[in-house]
Amino acid sequence: MNRTEDRLTTVSEDRPVTLVDEHARAWSPQEARTRFRAGLTGPTAGVAAGHTQVNLISVPADWAYDMLLFCQRNPKPCPVLDVTDVGSPATVLAPGADLRTDLPRYRVWRDGELVDEPTDVRAHWRDDLVSFLIGCSFTFEWALTEAGVPVRHLEQGRNVPMYETSWQCRPAGRIHGPMVVSMRPVPPQHLSAAIRESSLLPAVHGGPVHCGDPSTLGIEDLGRPDFGDPVDLHPDDIPVFWGCGVTPQAAVMASRPPFALTHAPGQMFLTDARDQQYRVA
Amino acid sequence: MNRTEDRLTTVSEDRPVTLVDEHARAWSPQEARTRFRAGLTGPTAGVAAGHTQVNLISVPADWAYDMLLFCQRNPKPCPVLDVTDVGSPATVLAPGADLRTDLPRYRVWRDGELVDEPTDVRAHWRDDLVSFLIGCSFTFEWALTEAGVPVRHLEQGRNVPMYETSWQCRPAGRIHGPMVVSMRPVPPQHLSAAIRESSLLPAVHGGPVHCGDPSTLGIEDLGRPDFGDPVDLHPDDIPVFWGCGVTPQAAVMASRPPFALTHAPGQMFLTDARDQQYRVA
Repeated sequence: MNRTEDRLTTVSEDRPVTLVDEHARAWSPQEARTRFRAGLTGPTAGVAAGHTQVNLISVPADWAYDMLLFCQRNPKPCPVLDVTDVGSPATVLAPGADLRTDLPRYRVWRDGELVDEPTDVRAHWRDDLVSFLIGCSFTFEWALTEAGVPVRHLEQGRNVPMYETSWQCRPAGRIHGPMVVSMRPVPPQHLSAAIRESSLLPAVHGGPVHCGDPSTLGIEDLGRPDFGDPVDLHPDDIPVFWGCGVTPQAAVMASRPPFALTHAPGQMFLTDARDQQYRVA
Repeated sequence: MNRTEDRLTTVSEDRPVTLVDEHARAWSPQEARTRFRAGLTGPTAGVAAGHTQVNLISVPADWAYDMLLFCQRNPKPCPVLDVTDVGSPATVLAPGADLRTDLPRYRVWRDGELVDEPTDVRAHWRDDLVSFLIGCSFTFEWALTEAGVPVRHLEQGRNVPMYETSWQCRPAGRIHGPMVVSMRPVPPQHLSAAIRESSLLPAVHGGPVHCGDPSTLGIEDLGRPDFGDPVDLHPDDIPVFWGCGVTPQAAVMASRPPFALTHAPGQMFLTDARDQQYRVA
């Protein structure tokens, strides 16, 4: 994803709307989904503020056990918030929503290869699909902000940088792949709050998986993320790494199931749940 | 389970050892498993103190997806700490352990009916079994005690009382059943700590599902638990209810899979994990 995509644009009109647009922040989740269903597209950071956004991955029922087990075994990058019944585009997290149409943009995968990025997947839908809704770091960024922790990529108007690591997830059946992490530079005096606040949200990645030297994770250059945008560190900032919901997409690339649908990075599904609901204390 | 079973007894010698026996508290998990493998049996409360005990349920692979989804959809009663590979009696939570022999006592279920309670299930084992290790309230009782919250059933030398409720779990495929809860009377001045401390342990049932009037859960008489022992409330004690790891056994009874293995209530599997590891903050 490059910087020019960091806007909400209507496909039909190609009219850019900045991400921090106050109208988008104030939309209800229902209103946001209705607009996305009608063709609005773009990153969802800040949309319907306070409501929980989630990663989507849909796989054929034949692969659903392996995917659910993969998530259970790797809860930091893959915290599952809901799993649909086979073939159903409905979720308890957003009654009335349709997972086939209500995201701004999707990715379609065949044999681990990205083949399409439509704004609607009704033409690709299969009656044997099981959809996994996975927690997203947008939820804990709200908690960081509330605790006074600066969030550099938000300050800099960028998408969070994400990296494939050299750490392999614990495999499950046919599904394997590297852990993907997101990185946020944290000033040392805020590190304790950043760890505490995210740890209290275990359903949305929980506490960091690593703090400090990127090479521990096999990351060679923070300036060249695999997904998202590079972000500028202030002097003394410590790079802090959290498990990332793009991990299932990396697993799809590595494990090559015959078919999968996902959200496009940064263009999440808006649920009716509130971020606060996932806080354990 | 009745009070006379609340002892550790060697089947061959029928020599009772009280639960709070200081030797059992100080055993390592490896030592405890070795003794159970050799035939020692009885409730495990207090054994290898500080180490995480878990509920066991094993079902045929054909039922594993439904069981894993049932747990995902009902995380308060069924928090999954590990799932084995198909046919394997090994778990990452206790390297070298054998799930077929290392528990004090098992239950064998056919078509939802309890058919045997052996101390070893090698004769019942099948190569298509998938085993689920599910968090146990013993872990948060440690945290309650550390926080100065009195735990009445421990004070009274009894097993915790457990109740089937009128609340149905969210079903998953062929698996359905009522939520089972454990109840601990909490003095009002300790209620805040009890909720906070257990909430910080979401992997082992987390915070309570209900506080106060038992009839809200369809429980008619606290003095007649469905499992475990009745416990005496002090004046002003508030009954507090947590999701209970016996819920999967209730689901087996309700859903009648052709075959299942579980631990016997109160006779848990001792892992090498430390209770502290599951605390999120």
